[in-house]
Amino acid sequence: MSFVYNADPERGREWQRLFALRAPDIDFRFWPDVGCPADVRYLGTWAPIEDLARFPNLEVVFSLGAGVDQFEFDSIPSRVPLVRMQEPGIVTTMQEYAIMAVLALHRDLVHYIAQQRKRIWEPRRVLPAARRRVGILGLGQLGAAVAERLSGLGFACRGWSRSPRDIPGVECFSGEKELPDFLAESEILVCLLPLTGLTRGILNAALFSQLPRGASLVNVGRGPHLITPDLLDALDSGQLSAAVLDVFDPEPPPEEHPIWSHPRILLTPHVASMTQPESAIDMVLDNIARHRAGQEMLGTVDRQRGY
Amino acid sequence: MSFVYNADPERGREWQRLFALRAPDIDFRFWPDVGCPADVRYLGTWAPIEDLARFPNLEVVFSLGAGVDQFEFDSIPSRVPLVRMQEPGIVTTMQEYAIMAVLALHRDLVHYIAQQRKRIWEPRRVLPAARRRVGILGLGQLGAAVAERLSGLGFACRGWSRSPRDIPGVECFSGEKELPDFLAESEILVCLLPLTGLTRGILNAALFSQLPRGASLVNVGRGPHLITPDLLDALDSGQLSAAVLDVFDPEPPPEEHPIWSHPRILLTPHVASMTQPESAIDMVLDNIARHRAGQEMLGTVDRQRGY
Repeated sequence: MSFVYNADPERGREWQRLFALRAPDIDFRFWPDVGCPADVRYLGTWAPIEDLARFPNLEVVFSLGAGVDQFEFDSIPSRVPLVRMQEPGIVTTMQEYAIMAVLALHRDLVHYIAQQRKRIWEPRRVLPAARRRVGILGLGQLGAAVAERLSGLGFACRGWSRSPRDIPGVECFSGEKELPDFLAESEILVCLLPLTGLTRGILNAALFSQLPRGASLVNVGRGPHLITPDLLDALDSGQLSAAVLDVFDPEPPPEEHPIWSHPRILLTPHVASMTQPESAIDMVLDNIARHRAGQEMLGTVDRQRGY
Repeated sequence: MSFVYNADPERGREWQRLFALRAPDIDFRFWPDVGCPADVRYLGTWAPIEDLARFPNLEVVFSLGAGVDQFEFDSIPSRVPLVRMQEPGIVTTMQEYAIMAVLALHRDLVHYIAQQRKRIWEPRRVLPAARRRVGILGLGQLGAAVAERLSGLGFACRGWSRSPRDIPGVECFSGEKELPDFLAESEILVCLLPLTGLTRGILNAALFSQLPRGASLVNVGRGPHLITPDLLDALDSGQLSAAVLDVFDPEPPPEEHPIWSHPRILLTPHVASMTQPESAIDMVLDNIARHRAGQEMLGTVDRQRGY
């Protein structure tokens, strides 16, 4: 009986050590060295793997990231559940990055980085967080956790999700109908939506035009949420003032792409959130135990809904 | 009876409005339009003002910033108390900036900014905050407030001050003797000391050599705390990996100074913390009431100690 790991090798060695300690009955293997295909019960992977039919006893596919948009659901046998990673390490690292990005926009850091290059020293007025309205697009596990932290830092925080949510200290909006009201007061917009057919391209000119003039954007969702030419236009026109992007489509961006050198865009290489083996192991082993006991696993993907 | 204001005019208009509302008996005047010198009772200023003897009835000098190092104490008549600004707006804006700067260093943002310029997309491993040791140099009102917030975000937080302090969740060190132990485990060092004869130049080669290799620095104290050539050497040798500086000596730095273009230094124009009129007015009016009642004012400077 084996668990096959297919992601970053450095963190893989931590997974291996933790499996040896906590689940010695499960043989831990690094992709593509899977051993006997019939022994493969569990697959932990970030990237999709082709031809899963070669593993006749495969029981669960664990996504090692929070999203599952990288998978073609049809390529995973319908009898095999696909499970998203929902572990505290992903949540806290996303909170950290989102707080950093929102503070950087709130406190004009992107502007000051451009000033430094031009050797300009011009302080701008500092407004208290309570007078800054931050909107979180997407209130799943990550969005809700980020909204709570930002609210705790004193920001006037609002959130939007497809179905109604209730988060203390956060003004919650839901459904298409309430999206315009949500956007109209979001000076810093943070995208934490899952990538689905309904959300692909949602960060576009029509949406930007509904934000207050001079608003700014944090995309920590997925690259395809964003229509990049619309962002560049909105920055040029002054409708948006700055953007922090951790994701892009494709990753990395082509070398000649203007995103690299835009003075009002801060780009990081998809590092907002990272699964932490020491906390993720609990979720995986707990789910394996649930699965053996015939219970539903936490984070099981609804293939219709897409997450 | 008048209060003379000598600082940023935009915020000055808010001070004026608040004085009219809350202390209509006090005539609010913008420097240098002081009216009759004998009417001047209170002076609110960021910069020092020469020849204060011309105001025979001056009762209090309020510094409109947290520090008082800009003043020559001898130039203020000894009968006139000098009061530091201690108001919640300064504290929360400093907390915001310090969190932003520490997260930026914790999450390799200075490194990614340099990568973006070179069109490089190379993710680095994300470590949880609990595995990052942050040291706060100076545990006054600002240092203590910053340490509490960072500890709340999960950082392994330690602090050093001249006299012993006790802050929940923060490992506290004090005095010269405990400084080496404090520095030895400070991977991100935040300077929030007052500027005095004892702290001038404290951020120097000898101190940097006691930090863990590859440590990073946030200076939100004062420019003269830092020996800039020592910082540049430490960055070159790899002893330090990055620095976020909000203050410099002099401000702004000379145009030809290497600090502007250093790829591992992020420079902001002294904006970490800013007095917020709407909260500072409470402190000033409360202190005026205390002074009239013959009580000691909060934030009165001990001229011997220097803060």
